[in-house]
Amino acid sequence: MENFVAYNPTKLVFGKGVVAQLGKEAQPYGKKALVVIGKGSVKKNGILEAVYQQLTEADISYTLYEGIKSNPIYEDADAAVAQAKAFQADMVVAIGGGSVIDSAKAIAAGYYVNHSVWDFYLRKAPAPTKALPIFSVLTLAATGTEMNMFTVLQSDAEKAKHGYGSPLLYPKVSFLDPEYTYSVPQNYTAYGVADLIAHSLEQFFDTSNSPLSDASAAEIIRLAMQYGREVHKNPHSYEARANIMWLATAALNGSLSAGKLGGDFGVHGIEHCLSVLFDIAHGAGLSIVYPAWMRHFYSQIEGKLTFLAQRTLHTNATANDFIVELEKFFTEINTPIRLSEAGIDREKHALILDNLKQNNPKGRFFKLIEADYNSILHLMA
Amino acid sequence: MENFVAYNPTKLVFGKGVVAQLGKEAQPYGKKALVVIGKGSVKKNGILEAVYQQLTEADISYTLYEGIKSNPIYEDADAAVAQAKAFQADMVVAIGGGSVIDSAKAIAAGYYVNHSVWDFYLRKAPAPTKALPIFSVLTLAATGTEMNMFTVLQSDAEKAKHGYGSPLLYPKVSFLDPEYTYSVPQNYTAYGVADLIAHSLEQFFDTSNSPLSDASAAEIIRLAMQYGREVHKNPHSYEARANIMWLATAALNGSLSAGKLGGDFGVHGIEHCLSVLFDIAHGAGLSIVYPAWMRHFYSQIEGKLTFLAQRTLHTNATANDFIVELEKFFTEINTPIRLSEAGIDREKHALILDNLKQNNPKGRFFKLIEADYNSILHLMA
Repeated sequence: MENFVAYNPTKLVFGKGVVAQLGKEAQPYGKKALVVIGKGSVKKNGILEAVYQQLTEADISYTLYEGIKSNPIYEDADAAVAQAKAFQADMVVAIGGGSVIDSAKAIAAGYYVNHSVWDFYLRKAPAPTKALPIFSVLTLAATGTEMNMFTVLQSDAEKAKHGYGSPLLYPKVSFLDPEYTYSVPQNYTAYGVADLIAHSLEQFFDTSNSPLSDASAAEIIRLAMQYGREVHKNPHSYEARANIMWLATAALNGSLSAGKLGGDFGVHGIEHCLSVLFDIAHGAGLSIVYPAWMRHFYSQIEGKLTFLAQRTLHTNATANDFIVELEKFFTEINTPIRLSEAGIDREKHALILDNLKQNNPKGRFFKLIEADYNSILHLMA
Repeated sequence: MENFVAYNPTKLVFGKGVVAQLGKEAQPYGKKALVVIGKGSVKKNGILEAVYQQLTEADISYTLYEGIKSNPIYEDADAAVAQAKAFQADMVVAIGGGSVIDSAKAIAAGYYVNHSVWDFYLRKAPAPTKALPIFSVLTLAATGTEMNMFTVLQSDAEKAKHGYGSPLLYPKVSFLDPEYTYSVPQNYTAYGVADLIAHSLEQFFDTSNSPLSDASAAEIIRLAMQYGREVHKNPHSYEARANIMWLATAALNGSLSAGKLGGDFGVHGIEHCLSVLFDIAHGAGLSIVYPAWMRHFYSQIEGKLTFLAQRTLHTNATANDFIVELEKFFTEINTPIRLSEAGIDREKHALILDNLKQNNPKGRFFKLIEADYNSILHLMA
């Protein structure tokens, strides 16, 4: 086992009706909230209203920033920072999925500086020394951002997507009501499942010896496949929604990083090039890249794949069985496994390769160079 | 899944040489530390000296409270509170196993009140509203107290052992160096393994439906048996010591309580009666009570035991196979499975039964009444 630090101060409040605790939890942190949402679905389904009521009962006034995109751009975060400063906000309340919460993290750090939030992501600005307290109400089970210190934003102009992390960016309290995800459409539910499986795999393919982490990653993947199928058949199953929601948090809240060196994340790097170029959902990109990446590195990861196969399928399953089953599963729940299925045809390959060379995603354990990009691109076609 | 809160603000610093970070971590919390230790082994092996050096470098002066017993008594905590008050301590630094850290938690809360700490455990005093910051340097892998909010103390006069919990009692930072456990004798190493397996089982026998929790409990138990055997053979195996140390933390740091209602803990209640009467190690008591408890409730838990058997042994294993294998494992690593093996003969049964009736341990899911005590006592003989 490698030396590690286990630290996660976020309070996660999980279950039916938990938003009723938001006012009480936010009250100690101030009097004014910037509320951040996406394209407005939370206005229609009553979730925004429920949060407003909580804030009002806690004597917290609020201003709304609306319109975070699903591949969130730094310009929105910068505009929201300006609004938060004008309002003299004491806190940020994010209602949405990973895009909205990741933007809220940027806003929280951007509040105390006079440069674009993008400079954090480009490592052009010094690390933040303070940030507004962040509260999140999750409406999409996928990225795990509700219980970690990471955020990913992109620049459309630069065609680049970058991650950033700071211990200041753990949400203070996150509220996860599985019933809030009943209305997530089938495809976005599937992308979320692909995302959580990918997060487990990224840490599993950190080859540091950490037996509990590897076993836990396999269990998360096994249950994600089981409840991913269940929720595909029955989107209003509370148990299926609740399990998927908790698995997505558990896949990236630090429990899998114990005894490891931070995961591989080469697949994430490749995927970021796809979603920044074609505006596809992150999870949809991941379900395309991972099977190709596994086939490309097959000879180096056969032992680890066999472990996964035996723990998620059956005791005699082979490494290749796992890849085949993963593709079958992704196809069943309707998330793409080939670029062509996402409407990205062969004439775009040169564009993808250029972007890969420009952004140069590396992978921490399975190093990526141009020859790897070519091979993986071929396998994704 | 039941509604739950996942919250654990303790920072766990794990690995070789991590005590070198203690000074830096403690410095922001004040200038004066009460250092708490047990019977003095940390004086001989250099750990106390290493901590003193860290405190000195961080410009923190200290006073030492020495002599916490292995089944810790509240009188020691009260005496240490008086010493801390006289010294005007800003923090408590515990160096030891569960007994020392549990005592440090009592001291931290007791510092701000004018009654015995025991009144917290008896629920005679209101909950603490503040507590000194707690730092821990763990020297025995077992109880998980280094990363949770619980503490257990006892009264020898009352022949009673009680637990207490408060969010104020999470250690700020805990330092876990597996090399510090190399010198733990074989029997105490085994008791620690029994303790961590028992913690996993207590939560596993919370019958609320929480699939990731159940799967994780099974993985912790499987690995505890694997590395428990390994460390028994090779006490200086870093990987074995590191795995046991992390498994003990993971078994009771909240990750298994997600989606559950707090665990059963009937076995812990019964064990407390044994260790308070006969001053045996808590883990040694648990390895005696659990097999008997499983046989007593066999018909109600056969399905759950079969799940455990299949995930920890092999796919065709039966419920009874698990009990037999657990007893075989405990015997192999030299922790007792019968009262007689702990030197408690049949003439003591009446005394045990009286103490059980007096303290009346219940179990949250598998309710215990006098008839159960009798049957379990018979099975433990």
